[in-house]
Amino acid sequence: MSPHTSSAPVPSKQYDVLVVGAGPAGLMASTCLTTYGLSVLHIDDRPTTTAAGRADGLQPRTLEVLRNIGSVKVEEGKSSLAKRMVSQGVRVYSVAFWDPTETEQLARTSRAPSCPDFIDVVDNYTLLLHQGLIENAFVDEIQQRRQLLSAEKLKPAPHGGVFRPYTFISCETDAAGDSEYPVKAVIQNSETLVHHEVRAKYLMGCDGAKSQVKRCISAPSDTPGGEPKTIKMLGDVSDIIFAVVDVEVSTDFPDILSKCMIHSKDAGSIMVIPREDNLVRLYVQLQKGEGQAGQAHIERDKATLDICFERAKKIFEPFTLEFGRVAWFSVYQIGQRIANHYTLDNRIFLAGDAVHTHSPKAGQGMNISLLDAYSWSWRINLVEKGMADPAILLPTYEQERKSVAEELLRFDSEYTKLFAGRAPNQSTVDLEVEAKHKAVGAVDPVLFIETFKKNSAFATGCGAIYFAGPLSALPDSELVKSWPKQGVFNPPGTRLIAGQRLLPGKITRAVDANQVRIQQEIRMDGAFRIHVFAGRFKSSLPRLEAFASFLASSSSFHNFHRPAASTPLASVLPTQTPSSRHISHEQPPLAANPFFKYLTVFATPYTEWDVDQVPAALRQVRDYVYSDDIFDRRVAEAGVDAPLHRKYGVDVEKGSIIVVRPDGYVGAIVELSEDGHAALNAYFAGFLKGGQ
Amino acid sequence: MSPHTSSAPVPSKQYDVLVVGAGPAGLMASTCLTTYGLSVLHIDDRPTTTAAGRADGLQPRTLEVLRNIGSVKVEEGKSSLAKRMVSQGVRVYSVAFWDPTETEQLARTSRAPSCPDFIDVVDNYTLLLHQGLIENAFVDEIQQRRQLLSAEKLKPAPHGGVFRPYTFISCETDAAGDSEYPVKAVIQNSETLVHHEVRAKYLMGCDGAKSQVKRCISAPSDTPGGEPKTIKMLGDVSDIIFAVVDVEVSTDFPDILSKCMIHSKDAGSIMVIPREDNLVRLYVQLQKGEGQAGQAHIERDKATLDICFERAKKIFEPFTLEFGRVAWFSVYQIGQRIANHYTLDNRIFLAGDAVHTHSPKAGQGMNISLLDAYSWSWRINLVEKGMADPAILLPTYEQERKSVAEELLRFDSEYTKLFAGRAPNQSTVDLEVEAKHKAVGAVDPVLFIETFKKNSAFATGCGAIYFAGPLSALPDSELVKSWPKQGVFNPPGTRLIAGQRLLPGKITRAVDANQVRIQQEIRMDGAFRIHVFAGRFKSSLPRLEAFASFLASSSSFHNFHRPAASTPLASVLPTQTPSSRHISHEQPPLAANPFFKYLTVFATPYTEWDVDQVPAALRQVRDYVYSDDIFDRRVAEAGVDAPLHRKYGVDVEKGSIIVVRPDGYVGAIVELSEDGHAALNAYFAGFLKGGQ
Ligand SMILES: Cc1cc2nc3c(=O)[nH]c(=O)nc-3n(C[C@H](O)[C@H](O)[C@H](O)COP(=O)(O)OP(=O)(O)OC[C@H]3O[C@@H](n4cnc5c(N)ncnc54)[C@H](O)[C@@H]3O)c2cc1C
Ligand SMILES: Cc1cc2nc3c(=O)[nH]c(=O)nc-3n(C[C@H](O)[C@H](O)[C@H](O)COP(=O)(O)OP(=O)(O)OC[C@H]3O[C@@H](n4cnc5c(N)ncnc54)[C@H](O)[C@@H]3O)c2cc1C
Repeated sequence: MSPHTSSAPVPSKQYDVLVVGAGPAGLMASTCLTTYGLSVLHIDDRPTTTAAGRADGLQPRTLEVLRNIGSVKVEEGKSSLAKRMVSQGVRVYSVAFWDPTETEQLARTSRAPSCPDFIDVVDNYTLLLHQGLIENAFVDEIQQRRQLLSAEKLKPAPHGGVFRPYTFISCETDAAGDSEYPVKAVIQNSETLVHHEVRAKYLMGCDGAKSQVKRCISAPSDTPGGEPKTIKMLGDVSDIIFAVVDVEVSTDFPDILSKCMIHSKDAGSIMVIPREDNLVRLYVQLQKGEGQAGQAHIERDKATLDICFERAKKIFEPFTLEFGRVAWFSVYQIGQRIANHYTLDNRIFLAGDAVHTHSPKAGQGMNISLLDAYSWSWRINLVEKGMADPAILLPTYEQERKSVAEELLRFDSEYTKLFAGRAPNQSTVDLEVEAKHKAVGAVDPVLFIETFKKNSAFATGCGAIYFAGPLSALPDSELVKSWPKQGVFNPPGTRLIAGQRLLPGKITRAVDANQVRIQQEIRMDGAFRIHVFAGRFKSSLPRLEAFASFLASSSSFHNFHRPAASTPLASVLPTQTPSSRHISHEQPPLAANPFFKYLTVFATPYTEWDVDQVPAALRQVRDYVYSDDIFDRRVAEAGVDAPLHRKYGVDVEKGSIIVVRPDGYVGAIVELSEDGHAALNAYFAGFLKGGQ
Repeated sequence: MSPHTSSAPVPSKQYDVLVVGAGPAGLMASTCLTTYGLSVLHIDDRPTTTAAGRADGLQPRTLEVLRNIGSVKVEEGKSSLAKRMVSQGVRVYSVAFWDPTETEQLARTSRAPSCPDFIDVVDNYTLLLHQGLIENAFVDEIQQRRQLLSAEKLKPAPHGGVFRPYTFISCETDAAGDSEYPVKAVIQNSETLVHHEVRAKYLMGCDGAKSQVKRCISAPSDTPGGEPKTIKMLGDVSDIIFAVVDVEVSTDFPDILSKCMIHSKDAGSIMVIPREDNLVRLYVQLQKGEGQAGQAHIERDKATLDICFERAKKIFEPFTLEFGRVAWFSVYQIGQRIANHYTLDNRIFLAGDAVHTHSPKAGQGMNISLLDAYSWSWRINLVEKGMADPAILLPTYEQERKSVAEELLRFDSEYTKLFAGRAPNQSTVDLEVEAKHKAVGAVDPVLFIETFKKNSAFATGCGAIYFAGPLSALPDSELVKSWPKQGVFNPPGTRLIAGQRLLPGKITRAVDANQVRIQQEIRMDGAFRIHVFAGRFKSSLPRLEAFASFLASSSSFHNFHRPAASTPLASVLPTQTPSSRHISHEQPPLAANPFFKYLTVFATPYTEWDVDQVPAALRQVRDYVYSDDIFDRRVAEAGVDAPLHRKYGVDVEKGSIIVVRPDGYVGAIVELSEDGHAALNAYFAGFLKGGQ
């Protein structure tokens, strides 16, 4: 990158949000906040994006999210965010397990899919590419989105919006000094050493494992009367040391193009990960000597590349391993730690490695960090636009994301222990493998594989589940428990679950017969997606008319929860409007609310009805009317007759309304009935503000 | 584009191929020839690529081909050829038919899919984007590929390799003057008016409907004793005039986002095509007055935009139509014409609009032009590399492509007549439509729809079939008819057909478990793809060993048909070699021949066997070993048990060998047996040269 020159932009004094750190989490936060039209000051103390190495795997759920973020209109020939990464990376579909057996020094004892088929996701693989390529893709996308910002929100910034190298020095929440911009922070240009004081409404600390933001806010606060709240990392620093190397190899080991877990008899273990650019990543467990006695671990500063190579060769025996170009080398000490809080005051937040660290084995670090920031941003947007009550909505960030991180750590430590050959002696496990495959090493392969499989839903990111709360109308949520009538929430037969992601599926857009993916029809734009699964066309019309009248009434959530008139936009993305695609239209019956989008899906093929027969409020955007008539092998028995209704467990004679949050998670499922309308009102009233 | 400056490159004196015209056909030729490592002089008399309008639709088969052409390693963030077009275009899945009915002035009487489900293709839609966007994508891809040319073949040229504006003046075949470079041509820089004489081995005239190349070679030749051969266009110039306009509209016509055929009662017809960039294309039939009496057509030069708009409004009645920005306007006179020859001497060739013109209604012009050039190029490559006998191989270009064009014209004129409301009175047709839908206009909608459906296989490009000949070992080919033993070619049960494209399917690559598309595994690289469908793993091994020994023998086609030692490459694309992906390997048992690639597909899942158990000759490139275990809804009954074997009609107990030509067409299907080996030898001996 070019050195800092006097013509380079300098930070302004005031922003909606200050984002510290431009690793994966920070870049995701910037991308989202920019999409929502907020002004962002983004800083990082590194002069450039990551050049090589570090985190490497994008999981299926992360890819689904990246596809949903989509791309704004790009230059001719430019690739979109997710497609760009997919085209640069390498796909891993399966993991091979290699162990010593009774007859062989090393043999493949099993294989497991990285994304087992029971997980319903489009990108059913792990995508491997180094962190820098991911960062670059984000930077370019942020650049494109910044061009759509309103003049008032667009402040000067370098390409991609990140000021670098700029170091975060300190911050505090000082509502007395400026109640609208209570966060006061000091940052420093790392080259000129000039300090800047900036003000923001919120600060997001994505500054990694050694977070300075975390340190700043962890000083005991002097809340009068209360216990001093500080942020502490809970968990262990492990003494297991791994060397990580991205290298070209030449070998006769047959599975070198697969992801492999190799457990040698005495020499330790290796994880092999195929990489882009003809590289292989090796995670090599480092220990002093051979055998049980030698399992004391060498010290971190003695872990050289030569030791790593030597150890790798030992573990690979009897296969040969020659090394070529080294793209990256690092040494990793596994710590399983998680912060007790992600925020102390709902003004200064933390995300990513700043609040959780763990072994790289599960390939989760970057994924969960990205999704932290993704998950936080839409809440800030709702609050910023005056839609939501910050006291209710903002704490759900920590509630949801911390529980996911805790799950991850549980999984990760189980996994790591196994990987390090420290599994408890499982003589009781029934070994159903062939004698040839029976392992004689320190790790029990059967237990290992079981653990692997049990956790794969979680590992793909698709198993990240949010518990009952104001945002997830689960049977055990306060709202649903106290609801007077049974079956209005989560009608009988429903197979979607609040707090889980919307399952993917294809539907036909009636207006142009395009076959589209329901989970990608609405880009990440900050809005709730209200999917009206109407059931059969004819019988649904009275129910739809009733829903349309309800929406148009002043008491509906649609009209009650509205952004302040001065800040109407949910995002800078172009919105489909009645007139945006040629169709001239009568006066729309529903005053548009950018935070609610309605998609109506019929169980009857679009060839048997007409968009104009649909109640006007539900075809206000004609594009959002669909039929459910595309074969899905997961509900093969349905053929082309409403497979998605069946997958979601929606009765085609009754219909349901499925609320999907801006992050793609199901919020609530209610009856398509008057009771259901009341239930929707109650669901949204649980966290949104009204009566503006 | 920048004006011609003195520093601009000038053409050299000698090239492998001179390509005249940089429309779709010429750009495809350049892309292919560059990929094959040949030196190309490419000229066009327009200063830039097409700015707006003209041809607009890419058909499913064309997209399949573009995906197969793929992309060479591109700059970070750059999109590949096909993906770029797909992301810029609009998809059309269905066509709506609007006609007058007994009760309504205009009503939707039917709908039909643009790519009916019985057509087995991945991109099951027509992609719409204007010709210039397609040209730009090619130009950028050619630029990338040129960087891979050997120094000797890389001659100076502007971005994308096209010299413009340069006008083709004349050419002749003058073997006496230079037997290696017999084609002598004169071109002119249209700005400086400087003439250049250039020599080439071949000339491809892709200079459109008014082809000057065609005119040059059409002068009666003085072949002694023979009838003078000239190139004539056969067919009619129709008097039907259409105006074509790309325009923004505002309307209450509900299907404006679909492709529509609108036949008004008296005012003529319109085809509506949704376009990228918020445009709609209207093909408006122009005629003088209303009603039967007014059907005399207005003269071409009187067809103004205003007349077109006025007419369009009439045809759309009772719907309203308002016009906004006009991106392009043109007037079209339909001619259904085809050349009697595509070449006279197998040195100077023609492709695209230079040899066939037709109405734009079927959306075929550009597609067939692209595929002409695609189809021609690999033949030139085989001849140029000394692999094929030009006297046998080169005439197959005209044989195959002319018959496809003839089919197209038959289809097109049938279609156009119907569209123009000139269908013969079909009172005999059984009208099975509801009374409400009965048309009272000049066009019989039932006949129209039947024609439409009947032709849809052809319209998607997937129905383009090549007849028996040296390249297509069909039952009625000389080779197969005279073959002593039945069932060696096209074994019983075979469902693939020589002369048709390989049906698509997914398989699992054993070496990394990647789920891949068989039709896209080998990029367009000039090689024949020998798909060994092995059947069940264990029982196949003896047959595979026999095939491997056969290949290694000196009498196999593999060893008999080899390029001259000095020109070994089939293409400039990077090839998978034994060592290219980490695996160190024993001495390969088979001396590589770049024109034959072997893909081995087992009916048994890859988890049940090991790549190293496969005979060494067939795992020489370890990537090309697969298992057939991915669900395909078209053979749903197979589940995950060898669905592709079943789709192709390969007996899992016996196996088959499927030869796919460099253009993705099936050439021959033979038994996996000693008889089959002999049959393969005979197939290749039918058009390849041997004993180099
Ligand atoms: C050396 C190393 C190797 C790793 N190897 C792997 C691996 O092999 N596999 C794997 O899955 N994960 C690995 N990780 C972890 C993975 O990179 C993280 O999980 C992921 O990057 C988390 O993203 P993040 O955005 O939260 O933090 P980071 O990516 O760490 O980003 C934090 C950013 O904040 C910046 N920053 C820090 N302090 C300040 C400050 N005071 N002022 C301004 N900017 C600041 C940093 O420069 C950095 O750019 C590795 C991490 C490191 C550091
Ligand atoms: C005005 C117009 C409108 C059209 N509208 C439609 C439509 O609506 N729908 C549709 O499907 N198809 C349409 N077409 C046809 C479609 O564009 C062609 O089928 C398609 O472009 C064929 O590709 P080609 O490469 O064979 O020829 P072209 O695209 O015509 O390319 C020929 C190229 O050769 C160049 N050239 C010609 N003579 C010389 C010379 N002597 N020296 C150097 N260069 C020369 C030309 O400038 C041109 O760039 C239209 C064509 C034209 C001309």
